[in-house]
Amino acid sequence: MRKSSQKPFKNRILQSSRSKKTRIVLAIDVNDGPPKELSDRATDLIEQTLQWICAVKLGRQTILCIGPERTAELLRKIHGSGLTTIIDDKLNDIDETNAAITRAYHNLGFDAITVNPFTGWKGGLEATFKLAHERGMGLLALVYMSHPGASEGYGQKILSNARSKKTRLEFEIFAERAVKWKADGAVVGATRPSIVLRAKEILGTSVPIFSPGVGTQGGEIARSLKAGTDYFIIGRSITTAKNPGNVAEEFAKASVDLDT
Amino acid sequence: MRKSSQKPFKNRILQSSRSKKTRIVLAIDVNDGPPKELSDRATDLIEQTLQWICAVKLGRQTILCIGPERTAELLRKIHGSGLTTIIDDKLNDIDETNAAITRAYHNLGFDAITVNPFTGWKGGLEATFKLAHERGMGLLALVYMSHPGASEGYGQKILSNARSKKTRLEFEIFAERAVKWKADGAVVGATRPSIVLRAKEILGTSVPIFSPGVGTQGGEIARSLKAGTDYFIIGRSITTAKNPGNVAEEFAKASVDLDT
Repeated sequence: MRKSSQKPFKNRILQSSRSKKTRIVLAIDVNDGPPKELSDRATDLIEQTLQWICAVKLGRQTILCIGPERTAELLRKIHGSGLTTIIDDKLNDIDETNAAITRAYHNLGFDAITVNPFTGWKGGLEATFKLAHERGMGLLALVYMSHPGASEGYGQKILSNARSKKTRLEFEIFAERAVKWKADGAVVGATRPSIVLRAKEILGTSVPIFSPGVGTQGGEIARSLKAGTDYFIIGRSITTAKNPGNVAEEFAKASVDLDT
Repeated sequence: MRKSSQKPFKNRILQSSRSKKTRIVLAIDVNDGPPKELSDRATDLIEQTLQWICAVKLGRQTILCIGPERTAELLRKIHGSGLTTIIDDKLNDIDETNAAITRAYHNLGFDAITVNPFTGWKGGLEATFKLAHERGMGLLALVYMSHPGASEGYGQKILSNARSKKTRLEFEIFAERAVKWKADGAVVGATRPSIVLRAKEILGTSVPIFSPGVGTQGGEIARSLKAGTDYFIIGRSITTAKNPGNVAEEFAKASVDLDT
């Protein structure tokens, strides 16, 4: 279990990103093989890319397949390399369940968890934010996902004021919740740079933007970076490459291009 | 792994419900203790309530704590008792991830999974519906959850037509998606009987309503049943009772009260 006395997640990932000159979060999803093989593959991917990443995000399918003991062991190795870890849960349940799931992930060793603001606060995510922040765990709020159908949810027009008939876009409401709830990050797909730009206006510098969708899904680092992305979550483009280290290096260099 | 040649999930749970004269789905969430103790407790709860339930729903926290091997073993026992099983995942990711998670659950032995229609279809839940139905696995779509904050998401007013300024409630759109996507069930909290009533108008007889929120959360069986609930998902009121069997019996009898 990670100690709550350490710095907040937001600061830890920023420090790692700056010292290693990379904004890349490696997304690892391994789920087609025996547990030991999968956790070995994950370890191997991290070792090959270690120099070029500032955090590791694991998918739920990976944990479902490798089980809690191997997950805890894998997280210990990742922490040993000085990296923070994110579980991509997209949490969206009632308070007691959310808290139990968050606690279980924290006990395994995760440093941060993704949550869906659609869940709402009272009896929903309130307990999770309280629990996670007490434990020094980070919370990344989904603001706009990277797939085409995301527009059916995150892109909906919401009637925010019945009298004035004023409408808001769902993701703008979610970005406001991320600020209000003191989230440690907001997830906005790199596939929609204009949305990244608009989300940044709301999030400012208090909530960094994590963008999935680069590479396989069609997003581009340069455009998304200009629009306001702080970290890129990249999986398949790196993990299925012949030489994951080389690809991670290219992405890492592109991700700090504007800084130099 | 369950065979895809068997009857659809919807038919299996209906048959079980009718033959056992109960509409109760037992929700098991055990997550505070060593893995073996937790899975023993789950087995014990099922044995005590077996006569009065038609299915078992497991929470993600339970699986996170007991691990895949023990989950598979537990599911074999539940199936051995003639019950179907639901994993309460509230799936809301991109297609590849959704499919990988669904596959992992199906390989463990689950018969059905809950999904959040907010995710959208293209690149979202489309792949999951295809995969699950090919494998004879059921899909339960969230339509309105049971907690107070659910109104911030499921209760939002959506501008469905920009020209006519026509608005719809989010849960009505979700209920329509459940019908269109051929979901095997819709989840509507028993804490809001008027929403159950309205959802039923949209869902008709093709998509049965599963209602959590009875007991601890304040929902009542009789009101919800009249409004249109087909199955009640009940956890803590049964699992924390001194005599879970007796409480399950009471709920079971109340749940078929209108049938007699």
